[in-house]
Amino acid sequence: MTHRTEKPRVGVGLVGSGFMGRCHANAFGAVSGLFDLPVQPIKAILADATRQAAEAGAAALGFARATEDWSDLVFDDAVDIVAITAPNVLHDPIAMAAIAAGKTVYCEKPLSTTAASALKMTEAAEAAGVVTSVGFNFLRNPMVRLARELIAAGDIGVITGFRGRHAENYMINPDTPHSFRTDPQGGGALADIGSHIVSMARYLLGPIAEVQADCTTIHKNRPAAPGSGVRKPVEVDDMTHALIRFENGVSGSLEANWAATGRTMDLSFEVTGTKGAIAFTQENMNQLLVQAGDGPGFTRIEAGPSHPPYAQFCPAPGHHLGFNDLKVIEVAQLLMAHAGGPACFPDFREAYEVQRTIEAMQSSHAIRSWVSV
Amino acid sequence: MTHRTEKPRVGVGLVGSGFMGRCHANAFGAVSGLFDLPVQPIKAILADATRQAAEAGAAALGFARATEDWSDLVFDDAVDIVAITAPNVLHDPIAMAAIAAGKTVYCEKPLSTTAASALKMTEAAEAAGVVTSVGFNFLRNPMVRLARELIAAGDIGVITGFRGRHAENYMINPDTPHSFRTDPQGGGALADIGSHIVSMARYLLGPIAEVQADCTTIHKNRPAAPGSGVRKPVEVDDMTHALIRFENGVSGSLEANWAATGRTMDLSFEVTGTKGAIAFTQENMNQLLVQAGDGPGFTRIEAGPSHPPYAQFCPAPGHHLGFNDLKVIEVAQLLMAHAGGPACFPDFREAYEVQRTIEAMQSSHAIRSWVSV
Amino acid sequence: MTHRTEKPRVGVGLVGSGFMGRCHANAFGAVSGLFDLPVQPIKAILADATRQAAEAGAAALGFARATEDWSDLVFDDAVDIVAITAPNVLHDPIAMAAIAAGKTVYCEKPLSTTAASALKMTEAAEAAGVVTSVGFNFLRNPMVRLARELIAAGDIGVITGFRGRHAENYMINPDTPHSFRTDPQGGGALADIGSHIVSMARYLLGPIAEVQADCTTIHKNRPAAPGSGVRKPVEVDDMTHALIRFENGVSGSLEANWAATGRTMDLSFEVTGTKGAIAFTQENMNQLLVQAGDGPGFTRIEAGPSHPPYAQFCPAPGHHLGFNDLKVIEVAQLLMAHAGGPACFPDFREAYEVQRTIEAMQSSHAIRSWVSV
Amino acid sequence: MTHRTEKPRVGVGLVGSGFMGRCHANAFGAVSGLFDLPVQPIKAILADATRQAAEAGAAALGFARATEDWSDLVFDDAVDIVAITAPNVLHDPIAMAAIAAGKTVYCEKPLSTTAASALKMTEAAEAAGVVTSVGFNFLRNPMVRLARELIAAGDIGVITGFRGRHAENYMINPDTPHSFRTDPQGGGALADIGSHIVSMARYLLGPIAEVQADCTTIHKNRPAAPGSGVRKPVEVDDMTHALIRFENGVSGSLEANWAATGRTMDLSFEVTGTKGAIAFTQENMNQLLVQAGDGPGFTRIEAGPSHPPYAQFCPAPGHHLGFNDLKVIEVAQLLMAHAGGPACFPDFREAYEVQRTIEAMQSSHAIRSWVSV
Repeated sequence: MTHRTEKPRVGVGLVGSGFMGRCHANAFGAVSGLFDLPVQPIKAILADATRQAAEAGAAALGFARATEDWSDLVFDDAVDIVAITAPNVLHDPIAMAAIAAGKTVYCEKPLSTTAASALKMTEAAEAAGVVTSVGFNFLRNPMVRLARELIAAGDIGVITGFRGRHAENYMINPDTPHSFRTDPQGGGALADIGSHIVSMARYLLGPIAEVQADCTTIHKNRPAAPGSGVRKPVEVDDMTHALIRFENGVSGSLEANWAATGRTMDLSFEVTGTKGAIAFTQENMNQLLVQAGDGPGFTRIEAGPSHPPYAQFCPAPGHHLGFNDLKVIEVAQLLMAHAGGPACFPDFREAYEVQRTIEAMQSSHAIRSWVSV
Repeated sequence: MTHRTEKPRVGVGLVGSGFMGRCHANAFGAVSGLFDLPVQPIKAILADATRQAAEAGAAALGFARATEDWSDLVFDDAVDIVAITAPNVLHDPIAMAAIAAGKTVYCEKPLSTTAASALKMTEAAEAAGVVTSVGFNFLRNPMVRLARELIAAGDIGVITGFRGRHAENYMINPDTPHSFRTDPQGGGALADIGSHIVSMARYLLGPIAEVQADCTTIHKNRPAAPGSGVRKPVEVDDMTHALIRFENGVSGSLEANWAATGRTMDLSFEVTGTKGAIAFTQENMNQLLVQAGDGPGFTRIEAGPSHPPYAQFCPAPGHHLGFNDLKVIEVAQLLMAHAGGPACFPDFREAYEVQRTIEAMQSSHAIRSWVSV
Repeated sequence: MTHRTEKPRVGVGLVGSGFMGRCHANAFGAVSGLFDLPVQPIKAILADATRQAAEAGAAALGFARATEDWSDLVFDDAVDIVAITAPNVLHDPIAMAAIAAGKTVYCEKPLSTTAASALKMTEAAEAAGVVTSVGFNFLRNPMVRLARELIAAGDIGVITGFRGRHAENYMINPDTPHSFRTDPQGGGALADIGSHIVSMARYLLGPIAEVQADCTTIHKNRPAAPGSGVRKPVEVDDMTHALIRFENGVSGSLEANWAATGRTMDLSFEVTGTKGAIAFTQENMNQLLVQAGDGPGFTRIEAGPSHPPYAQFCPAPGHHLGFNDLKVIEVAQLLMAHAGGPACFPDFREAYEVQRTIEAMQSSHAIRSWVSV
Repeated sequence: MTHRTEKPRVGVGLVGSGFMGRCHANAFGAVSGLFDLPVQPIKAILADATRQAAEAGAAALGFARATEDWSDLVFDDAVDIVAITAPNVLHDPIAMAAIAAGKTVYCEKPLSTTAASALKMTEAAEAAGVVTSVGFNFLRNPMVRLARELIAAGDIGVITGFRGRHAENYMINPDTPHSFRTDPQGGGALADIGSHIVSMARYLLGPIAEVQADCTTIHKNRPAAPGSGVRKPVEVDDMTHALIRFENGVSGSLEANWAATGRTMDLSFEVTGTKGAIAFTQENMNQLLVQAGDGPGFTRIEAGPSHPPYAQFCPAPGHHLGFNDLKVIEVAQLLMAHAGGPACFPDFREAYEVQRTIEAMQSSHAIRSWVSV
């Protein structure tokens, strides 16, 4: 019986232990068993808002140490990668510190609360030459990657139209209170989930040049805080419909809607070309509908080992990937980039572009006119 | 053995024997066996562009007489109802003559090539007090009627959003030549099939107050005529995306697309309310997806005898209606209105409103701004 | 204006004016407008159980005369085709009389209440040389015909397996009373709707050689008659599962179930071959799912004019056929056969073979063993 | 900054590092971050057939030590749980040794190559009082659990029928060579994947009392080994159709098919009751279709935090679980049972019952008659 040799270790410092913090932790825990990586991530330090939360989080998620001060984490020598799942307003200071410390930075979306801040972060990261990655995890789906490849290869001809949507129902209850989600600084359906369909549109078809959005606040006020009897006005959108024009001239539409009754995850698109079409919805995330060439109709392609990196998870087709697996793919890409491999996509620059597009949509609503991004 | 007693006969004069002419003829032929009507339609006269076509059409479709002059038909005493399936540019003169003759007028959509003409026709018909009906047959679907009733009854709460589309692929081939469909006067995807989803939006949620459309011509030129080697520029849209605001404040989006590869009949909508949602596509025209109240997800309702007037066609659920059956329903309503029953919907007035909305969309594209309808 | 020339007229005598009687009448009324036939059917005489019912039916369905004596109808010179939608027990005497009179006979399924009777009818018809047709209308679907053609052409390789079902819920209520459906002579789910999936299996893959069925009576008793307080035992099956072996060696399974909650028309099959597969359900009767050759998954083919005889109904794809249209197709085939064209399928012989297969299944249940058909 | 306190550690010894070995390893790696367990699993030792394979596997999957001798692993004090993913023929000796050593045993399905061996293992485990678990992971799906709960609660009334299938296409190629899968001892489609649908049938509706199966070998011979030019006869089934009767009297059918072109994971069932029905397919593993009570049709329920243990993976609905997550759920249950919690299901006893049912099916085919299980 022998002891196995170790790969170089990479220390992970995670800020935040909520929904996304857990996702990150699990992804770092699972990735080595699934991907053949040049490095071995180690869960080094977990930071959260209070010592108690940090310690509980570290215990639950398998981190060696805990702290209530994220700056301790950022500057600790045991940390090579700073993973940020803190509230959106903290993305900027934590990332800027991590960049200053020369660390690889892995930040949840949105990159920041404003495009200006996101641009500052992007430029700092690029100047420092650090690796960056932003958690638009839905782009990691092998089926979405396949869509992108089919489009790029010309399988559906010249692209003519786009139709996208991200619709969920998590804010449909008017008694769901205010939170960071409804903060005018970076909140609203368009910023929160519209960013997913904007990033997907860009991933598939490239930059968006012009936008015209129509934003709606369905519930005009909400409780000021959980349990509060005081209701305060809502200043952000619950639903936005938008027209878009890509730089390549393709015309399309987008919807972001967090009050979409009946929908829990309709992140969907249909891309139409002169020789075919591709349709996808996250509701069936392991399928892609493709009509190409002289095909008589849409063919349902089921995810399988011929669609990278599905084979890392399973050698047989039809064994679905789940949401958490998308995060593992994201983390694998991050670790390869950290070890000198290809740059991550989306990185800070791309996330800034998404945010800029979102802000252009918000502006277009305000002035009720088309706006160039 | 006895001879049956007859109902009062109503003479039908049909102008046109193409796709829609056949639909009308078959509907008039089938309706008496399916609906218990106060009158019995008789296929009296068929008119077409040439004597040969008219005679062939009359023989094929079961009309007693044939003529190449539609005005003969309109003023013949044997004709009580003038059914117009002639080219769009003829709708106005034929309908105006029929109105002058005091006949019931049943016109295919679009009512005319311009809203101005449609308004003139509408006002003439209203002044004359004649019964009118326009062939937006997709509204006759029991499932669409059910959607309207559920919305009106408040089953899905206060309506918050609308998402509509009519996408087909019949003009995707750049070598499909010019025709009435690409005539700048009344042509284009928005006018041709966008009118269906506009009429459906209005049927479900009422008048549309403001629009902002983005029209695209995918194929910049087409053969001047069938078999022609000369290509002429296309001046109409192949695809239009639009933002809409209903009078009741609901925000939504629309797409009209006749170059939608992979799609043959995606006439679809999703209506979202504060307490539920309804989704429909003509691709599954005998189903309605409804999520209402505390329901855990969309329920697939299959058309059956509890959804009027399905029971006229079949006493058992699950026995699908087809496209031609929708025309029978339309004709049944027409005959009841002719016999003194409730007015048809859509009538000329409603068809004019649809056309006006379409023209507002075209204007909004031209000036790249929101336009009030 | 000219009067059209007439085609030779063919007089139709219809026995029965219930659900299926209406279907027949409408089909005869609509067929001439849709198909270019060598003859023109005329609705000559309608017979029903009472004079009142017959007269009402004739008036509603457009027949020239009415009678309460079906033998008057059969022997009337005005009748060339006898269409039988009377109760199952009457199929035999009416058909035998019609055969004796040298008439074309169009009989609803099942051909008779026993295979012995069906065989007698078949042999009489063949001896007399009359045209026969039996109303297994689901086989008329262009999508089912396409499935058959793809199988016959070898598109999915050598056939290996079959999986079929006809499941509806119309007898799920234990208080639905006894009727001809529960008569041990010819009744039960297997005979009533199992015959549809048996006929479809034969249509697709040929004769069934061996069967082994398991029949279940879910509701052990039902009211003796509508409104009756007396309950009588049920002797027929509500649900049958069966193993089948085709003559060509293909193995498969069948289910007939008229107590299938949640289902209104799951008449479905999946045929598997060495190089592909075909799946269909009447729930989406205008679609066929086909995976063939190296195809990456099932392709959804939507019914269109390239699938005969869809084009008779509509020149554009995606405009669904409905249930009643299937009956029109059946009647068109009948009229062509009557005028000297190809024999109908299914004819009496084929319907007898179906019935024989059903009876073999019932026997196999009784002796709990495989039975050769 | 503090160091977190540790939970009691439980050493895992994994035998095998193929597809299922990786699944086990990843599940043990991920489970602590997702479930709040009383113990912390430690990947102690990995055994594989050769030293090289074992060392590579240990390095890739994160085990502390490696060995080519599984008995070393079984008797090592560092190992508390023996996880068996070795070839089927080794399940018996490894499990027997582990039981003798008093270890918790976690074995992949099938439990053994014969029911006799499985019974011996079961009785030994029960006599020794060790915890056992068998990897029928598809039962761990929250949607399948929901189906079971709805059935048990009477939501769909008295159960009347069952229809099950496990169809994949992984053996459709006649040039796929012989392997353990085609070994007459424990091989064949019915044993390999039929066991999944048998276990699911039992999980939902209880023991199966009687069976009658029809087994088919589609490809009569296959290459003797990978790359071999010699073809040897195949003695196992590629496809089996079966009739089944549950102890509670419910009648149903089953299909196992590993040559099902077009299918990669049609593990599906439809359970019908007097007041509703439930349908599921692993092709849409995060959905359950339920029609209950007076519901107008099937409602699509999407997996969410109200369906345990989904919430361990994600706090929001619509974020799909994947195949590997099912294994995590299985391992969580195992660790809880190991720590004194409720017994696992399925355990060895249940796996033996499944195997016994499979063997009864094989016998019924051989004698072409119903067989009591």
